Amino acid sequence: MRSYNVAVVGAAGLVGQKILEILAERDFPVGGLTLMATARSAGQTQEFRGRPYTIAEARPDLFEGVDLAFFAASSTASEELAPEAARRGAVVIDKSAVFRMKEGVPLVVPEVNPEALDGHRGIIASPNCSTIQMVLVLAPIQRARPIKRVVVSTYQSVSGTGREAVEELKAQTRDVLADRPAAPNVYPHQIAFNILPHIDKFAPDGYTLEEVKMIQETRKILSLPDLPITATTARVPTYVGHAESVNIELAGPLEPDEVRAILRLAPGVAVVDDPAHNQYPLPVEAAGRDDTLVGRVRTDPSVPYGLNLWIVSDNLRKGAATNAVQIAEALIARNRL
Amino acid sequence: MRSYNVAVVGAAGLVGQKILEILAERDFPVGGLTLMATARSAGQTQEFRGRPYTIAEARPDLFEGVDLAFFAASSTASEELAPEAARRGAVVIDKSAVFRMKEGVPLVVPEVNPEALDGHRGIIASPNCSTIQMVLVLAPIQRARPIKRVVVSTYQSVSGTGREAVEELKAQTRDVLADRPAAPNVYPHQIAFNILPHIDKFAPDGYTLEEVKMIQETRKILSLPDLPITATTARVPTYVGHAESVNIELAGPLEPDEVRAILRLAPGVAVVDDPAHNQYPLPVEAAGRDDTLVGRVRTDPSVPYGLNLWIVSDNLRKGAATNAVQIAEALIARNRL
Repeated sequence: MRSYNVAVVGAAGLVGQKILEILAERDFPVGGLTLMATARSAGQTQEFRGRPYTIAEARPDLFEGVDLAFFAASSTASEELAPEAARRGAVVIDKSAVFRMKEGVPLVVPEVNPEALDGHRGIIASPNCSTIQMVLVLAPIQRARPIKRVVVSTYQSVSGTGREAVEELKAQTRDVLADRPAAPNVYPHQIAFNILPHIDKFAPDGYTLEEVKMIQETRKILSLPDLPITATTARVPTYVGHAESVNIELAGPLEPDEVRAILRLAPGVAVVDDPAHNQYPLPVEAAGRDDTLVGRVRTDPSVPYGLNLWIVSDNLRKGAATNAVQIAEALIARNRL
Repeated sequence: MRSYNVAVVGAAGLVGQKILEILAERDFPVGGLTLMATARSAGQTQEFRGRPYTIAEARPDLFEGVDLAFFAASSTASEELAPEAARRGAVVIDKSAVFRMKEGVPLVVPEVNPEALDGHRGIIASPNCSTIQMVLVLAPIQRARPIKRVVVSTYQSVSGTGREAVEELKAQTRDVLADRPAAPNVYPHQIAFNILPHIDKFAPDGYTLEEVKMIQETRKILSLPDLPITATTARVPTYVGHAESVNIELAGPLEPDEVRAILRLAPGVAVVDDPAHNQYPLPVEAAGRDDTLVGRVRTDPSVPYGLNLWIVSDNLRKGAATNAVQIAEALIARNRL
């Protein structure tokens, strides 16, 4: 079997490390491996399959000879270096929002729209974490009954922000427990024992960019450019696993039992829906799994053909690293790498 | 000025203590004071206006001579003792769900439907915490433009469950920080660093009773028996303050600026909506206040005349104790006590 020279940009970050972990877990045919990061993390070593690799400061010439480059760093890094990598012949799988909505850039969840990979021109975008888990569930429902509208509210963990946010939640939690003031640094307000209805920057219309991403990316991935959808995204004091309360209107009837039957067959989705035994998707149980969990499926009688769903997924795995590695696997399967 | 003999049932609980605190804060004309609780808490003393009161085990004859009885105990206590108190001439203000949906029992948020008090027959119900904060915001909007549909998702703090839940969150948080297993007791799953889409029992249709309460009580308070409304309620690891992501459809246009202008004039509501300066309602800032905070007001273009709102309130104060005391004040103002 062929192997590939792989680069990981942002190799010191939470998602970068998770990509390495998942490449190993899934036995991805890694030939050479180049790890890159900002100057701040350069020089650190990172283990991969029992061998230490030194992280280099990211720069264009390091992409020479690279077949596949995972970008899990800042938007600036993607903006500057992804085109350089592609120019040198690497296929880029980018976790940032920079290229997602660009014409001609495939935005892919491999279980949902792998065919979009076929037209790639060197850069492929992996969607926002909160989008990935929602479209995994919406796509099979949409195939059964067209979706007319989506209203989503999210409960997103701090690991989506990065390592500093995880440390901040931990430190602030200790402070609050000890009756000390919890100083905010990564977030504009205390996150410990609090809820922030604020993820990413605010647009002039009052939506956050996280909300805009969920709306626009869902439409692109599902090829439903006019899908009516609205979102409210909130940061909650959990470490790993985003939860979503999703209300949808369908074009025709679909009973909860039928929805569960459809979702049980959906790749990447696990139905956890037995309220009588207190079984429903939970962040602490989604953490460490690749499946997106869905439950609390019920009819919403406030609108014709309404449904409520509760969706939870590991934002570092399927929401980021696993999806990126699955894109690489799909590229190989489709002869596009 | 006349004073009233007051009883508080559940005086050892979080809400009972908050009622005593708020009666003092608001200079409520308390004459005699009788504190009651279950056998477990009987014998404890509780201070009120600098004087210690011993908590008695609740029983019917203790309501003799009582003018006003606040019930902030279990549903069973309300079911058994509220009619006994009313029979003895006390006006009961009950925090439990037992009487809320009963014909002839006023379900009151004093800023919204004080006129419902006039027909009371001895028992008045105070709504569910998550309902109160939502109707405070919906009512003034409804007066400007009829509301056609409501979709709400909640982020509810553990103090809504009671003192044991507050202790459980604290203990589990310490356990997780120390890498010890977090044993669940009050809740069926770990609440520390987790989200439970489960509040109160499950009905056969998959909704929780908390969701059913929000739906039914909102309709009753707003006198909109057919209002299309759906709810998903979730418990989050916060101590005090419930947050709600509320999506509404109106019968006609209302710009966010107009909504904010209406809400600034609404009693009991404070608009906190300046995203450019990171100002939006937060549980830690709502805690200790009587105002319900609303912000993130924005147009939802996914439906004609759609709006998104973010509503946060102190569930122990306005969501429970303050509302109950305000009901008592409204009874006095309307000569119904």
